[in-house]
Amino acid sequence: MSDLPQHVEIHEEGPREGFQIEPGPISSADKIRLIDALSETGLHHIQVCSFVNPRLVPGWADAEAVAAGFTPKPGVHYTGLYFNGNGLDRALAFKDRLTIGGAISLTASVGFTKKNLNRTPEENIAQMKRHAELHVSKGIPVTRVGVMAAFGCNYQGDIAPATVIKTLEDGMGIAAEAGCEISLFSLADTMGWATPVRIERTVGAVRERWPDMKISLHLHDTRGLAVANAHAGMKMGVTRFDSTVGGLGGCPFAGQPKAAGNICTEELVLLCEEMGIDTGVDLDKLIEVGRMAEEIVGHQLPGELIHAGSLDAFRRMAA
Amino acid sequence: MSDLPQHVEIHEEGPREGFQIEPGPISSADKIRLIDALSETGLHHIQVCSFVNPRLVPGWADAEAVAAGFTPKPGVHYTGLYFNGNGLDRALAFKDRLTIGGAISLTASVGFTKKNLNRTPEENIAQMKRHAELHVSKGIPVTRVGVMAAFGCNYQGDIAPATVIKTLEDGMGIAAEAGCEISLFSLADTMGWATPVRIERTVGAVRERWPDMKISLHLHDTRGLAVANAHAGMKMGVTRFDSTVGGLGGCPFAGQPKAAGNICTEELVLLCEEMGIDTGVDLDKLIEVGRMAEEIVGHQLPGELIHAGSLDAFRRMAA
Repeated sequence: MSDLPQHVEIHEEGPREGFQIEPGPISSADKIRLIDALSETGLHHIQVCSFVNPRLVPGWADAEAVAAGFTPKPGVHYTGLYFNGNGLDRALAFKDRLTIGGAISLTASVGFTKKNLNRTPEENIAQMKRHAELHVSKGIPVTRVGVMAAFGCNYQGDIAPATVIKTLEDGMGIAAEAGCEISLFSLADTMGWATPVRIERTVGAVRERWPDMKISLHLHDTRGLAVANAHAGMKMGVTRFDSTVGGLGGCPFAGQPKAAGNICTEELVLLCEEMGIDTGVDLDKLIEVGRMAEEIVGHQLPGELIHAGSLDAFRRMAA
Repeated sequence: MSDLPQHVEIHEEGPREGFQIEPGPISSADKIRLIDALSETGLHHIQVCSFVNPRLVPGWADAEAVAAGFTPKPGVHYTGLYFNGNGLDRALAFKDRLTIGGAISLTASVGFTKKNLNRTPEENIAQMKRHAELHVSKGIPVTRVGVMAAFGCNYQGDIAPATVIKTLEDGMGIAAEAGCEISLFSLADTMGWATPVRIERTVGAVRERWPDMKISLHLHDTRGLAVANAHAGMKMGVTRFDSTVGGLGGCPFAGQPKAAGNICTEELVLLCEEMGIDTGVDLDKLIEVGRMAEEIVGHQLPGELIHAGSLDAFRRMAA
């Protein structure tokens, strides 16, 4: 247990991931209500919206209204997702409310890059070079290299740790050329291929190559192993996780609307708490927000604590 | 990874756990259809029914019809749950189809013993002595000591490893007095209090006291940590698990009808497969049975693989 971190940083993506995939429509007021409630739970990072093409993602046609409407809480970092210069400009219009930081986003699967982005890996690398340079030209730091499909891919199968290393090297090459200093690697299990042993191998290989780099995991619970994967990650020294309250979200690549979304924030917090790892989050408050999310989307969410309550709540009753 | 078992034995309890808690009614024909489908998946142990008081558990009023109706497959062990002499006699009527074996069942929580059984721990020990002697008098082996609420209790809070050791010692004392040879300890996380670190501590303490005893875990996914707990258990040398297809079942003690049931068999099999641990189960066949279970109960089940498919299915498509 001595290799477990003392503190885990949680990046809440429920509003962004959840409301992009819900058949909805979800009102801007409900989105804002959820964000404002999340701000009171002790979370320090909340992704509030996605500045994407509203024709492609109708659920985020109201990104500006949400970005303008929530009430920022001092000490909490709010972010908006974007993929291109237009999205960046839309985000920059809210730079007094949002934390803007760039990422070099690559994919470990050739098949997924083609299917999801309609690009070859070479075209994607060229695109990411331009993306990094755009940030630099605007004075916005690019500190993160992200790798999607880092543990496997529905269109390509297993992804070897060596492929992830190669993809990160590509990202580091782009960063060096653009003059960016990378401080974080984010490995995404985009389609739910990770297993604890795969986490151990891939994160182990990355840490061997870059011993001092901070690593974040973006886990999906597509096949029910996300909490076990998070636990394996923590044991490998991972100190940052993306997650969604109530397990909001889904997997558009599973071909099934009922497929599970991201790892659930409440379960991640419970796991940390019971191991004595600080997250700063008040779990009982967070469970209440999970219940609000379930009420807003109008169907049962996968987060189990919404329906079972925290251990501390029962401990207080039993005492 | 060297301490992981090479083989894990899975005891499927979906029919018994699932159909006792579903608001139903589920027809005997559907129960039999599910059992017969499970028999074709490679599972070696299937609990098919519960010989309980039909006034208390209306969902199992048809235990005899189901026990008589399924088609036993050679090499598969079928069992029926029972709690008293009357239940044992009902099970013995099917001794040509069911494997009958006794257990000394205790609870690590005084509060739960009182709430669930309306007995003091002393009364329960006396009852279990009579239960063991009854089996011996009929020539039925009693080989298992089970401990319910071994990791925590909604009515009592945390359960210390020392309390589990004491409860197992009580069970071993009963067995010695009745002349039974115990070969298995079953630790049940009846209300979803287990966490990986708690599994490590409690299983570790039990193995230190009884280094050669085989240990089984009965895990509930009440708070979403069941797969992580199973993984922790395997690393501690646990080689047997109870589980339910599709995650059938629930938690009558969570006070919420939507609370999750047992650890899902498909997710347990996936976890084992990806670590190279043999279970004998054909995962794709099992997922089909999960889909059948979902159709029978008429609502979405928590098992994620029902909705996302196995990794091997995508590997074949990607190849």
